[in-house]
Amino acid sequence: MRILNCILFSACMLIAGAGAQTANAASANPPIAIVIHGGAGTISPKDMTPALEAEYRSTLRQALTSGYAVLKRGGTSLDAVQAAIEVMEDSPLFNAGRGSVFTHDGKNEMDAAIMDGSNLKAGGVADVQHIKNPIALARLVMEKTPHVLLVADGAEQFAVSQGMPLMPAGYFYTQKRWDELQRALKKEGNKTTALEEQYPGTSAHGFGTVGAVALDRYGNIAAGTSTGGLTNKLDGRVGDSPLTGDGTYANNATCGASGTGTGEYFMRLNLTKDVSDLMQYKGWPLKKAVDYEINDKLVKFGGKNSGGLIALDHNGNIATAFNTTGMYRGWIDSRGRVVVKIFKGE
Amino acid sequence: MRILNCILFSACMLIAGAGAQTANAASANPPIAIVIHGGAGTISPKDMTPALEAEYRSTLRQALTSGYAVLKRGGTSLDAVQAAIEVMEDSPLFNAGRGSVFTHDGKNEMDAAIMDGSNLKAGGVADVQHIKNPIALARLVMEKTPHVLLVADGAEQFAVSQGMPLMPAGYFYTQKRWDELQRALKKEGNKTTALEEQYPGTSAHGFGTVGAVALDRYGNIAAGTSTGGLTNKLDGRVGDSPLTGDGTYANNATCGASGTGTGEYFMRLNLTKDVSDLMQYKGWPLKKAVDYEINDKLVKFGGKNSGGLIALDHNGNIATAFNTTGMYRGWIDSRGRVVVKIFKGE
Repeated sequence: MRILNCILFSACMLIAGAGAQTANAASANPPIAIVIHGGAGTISPKDMTPALEAEYRSTLRQALTSGYAVLKRGGTSLDAVQAAIEVMEDSPLFNAGRGSVFTHDGKNEMDAAIMDGSNLKAGGVADVQHIKNPIALARLVMEKTPHVLLVADGAEQFAVSQGMPLMPAGYFYTQKRWDELQRALKKEGNKTTALEEQYPGTSAHGFGTVGAVALDRYGNIAAGTSTGGLTNKLDGRVGDSPLTGDGTYANNATCGASGTGTGEYFMRLNLTKDVSDLMQYKGWPLKKAVDYEINDKLVKFGGKNSGGLIALDHNGNIATAFNTTGMYRGWIDSRGRVVVKIFKGE
Repeated sequence: MRILNCILFSACMLIAGAGAQTANAASANPPIAIVIHGGAGTISPKDMTPALEAEYRSTLRQALTSGYAVLKRGGTSLDAVQAAIEVMEDSPLFNAGRGSVFTHDGKNEMDAAIMDGSNLKAGGVADVQHIKNPIALARLVMEKTPHVLLVADGAEQFAVSQGMPLMPAGYFYTQKRWDELQRALKKEGNKTTALEEQYPGTSAHGFGTVGAVALDRYGNIAAGTSTGGLTNKLDGRVGDSPLTGDGTYANNATCGASGTGTGEYFMRLNLTKDVSDLMQYKGWPLKKAVDYEINDKLVKFGGKNSGGLIALDHNGNIATAFNTTGMYRGWIDSRGRVVVKIFKGE
């Protein structure tokens, strides 16, 4: 499919080269675009120093431009998504890779997935503790195994078999995330099993799941998500990020999407698959489906102040939505415009 | 919601008691029904001794009647699903609990999930190695944690915290499954990453995932699935069974469903969520959606001879489909008729 698209695209370029450039602009320059997020949560300007805000904006921009550079030079959306996410995994600012939050028992257990919209192939890993870039391992699961999801020790054994080094636990440690766990543990005297009470929004529990969705010049959409999950989660808890149709989804026929927030809601609603099905089965445009999902369905389901979503379709239309006070986000659209935002209403 | 339904039902019974029994038969006797499967695969009468066939039929019947007894005495669909599945997990005939297949490294790694259609709550476990009844642990994840999915050591730690004993690995061992692994390992000289080649249907790789879907007199649908996965799978591989919208789904508004087969296809298609969305967003009846999914969409996706599905809706309509030569299956419908089948065309 990708090879065929390549050939078609090359033929298109030849025709465009021979004819009038302007008339063939659309086919000669099929849209490319990328959208990313670095997590949704209670984020307000007053909690942020100017220096920290600048650091977030600069890292988001760096992730965007890394992904976009891949698309610009004719690379695939899969490579673009991976490049953008690795920048955020390597930064201690976000809850993914280095800087991941801690489980109840003080471990970093990370989840990630990547999906190829051209063939619905997907790879995911969950509950990995020593992988520098979980998104890269998810990619290997997709490309080098017949499976879609590997977890825990088995996933790390597979990483080693692919020549990927295991990092010491200390690599992932940040004081900020450790302190978040200590605060959560202190609060725990008042234990409850109600999700709404235990994870009231993502404010006190660490946020910063990262994700990217890209459209390449071959018309292929890819999406990826990477996360440390929820602060103080039970050991072994897997969220929505590594699961196709929940936190991560890509389908050329509809859209690519990546979610962030209290993953349990996304899993129970199969939220990204739902966006795709509203487009495919009800003919909704991307923006309507994304807005409905986050600001209506999720809220009515109890998920007020619980998360956000980024998405794009095969025309390069971009949609973002969140029902929290902020979401680290940015995009480079089909016209090449670069946008980075953090707060609501910005 | 369940309490409200209980009250409404009791009120209904009182009214029915006071009025004409026949006129109120529908409301006085809301439909109850249960459908189960014990795996789809290459099953033909010639591979089966009469004694083995009788044993399968008898165990399926026992699972059905265990679940139906719960419904009959006014129990919930969740309890019915769990009861039916535990019978099959405890039997060495099926690839779930005792009798689970072996991973590449010779381990039994089991997955299970249960979902409540009245509120979309769900619980799942994956990659557990010492749990007698993974479906019971999935139920505890749903009811006693704020999470939806726990895997590996964390899931077993949670089991222990709930007073569930860990079984020695030997409990799950069966000679038949061990021999299946040895045959698969022998074949492996010719390694390939193509799913279609590595898992050509489920014939040589063990089948027997079990599942149940039930409708109780309160109008609530529940679904559950339990499995040992694929013979010779990589350690840590998680399939579709423990994932909401993939191998297991329940939603009172549409249907409950449980899948069996090569899970990777079900995960990439979010197959059970797709059935539900075709019903909800396109108005398709249950049978049309189930048939389309297994005999059209899945086949076109490369999943010829790869699996099957059982489902029921809130009226108690039952649908089953499989694109293999057989599926262990059975149901007790809203009229109380008991049916058990194994082969195609039976």
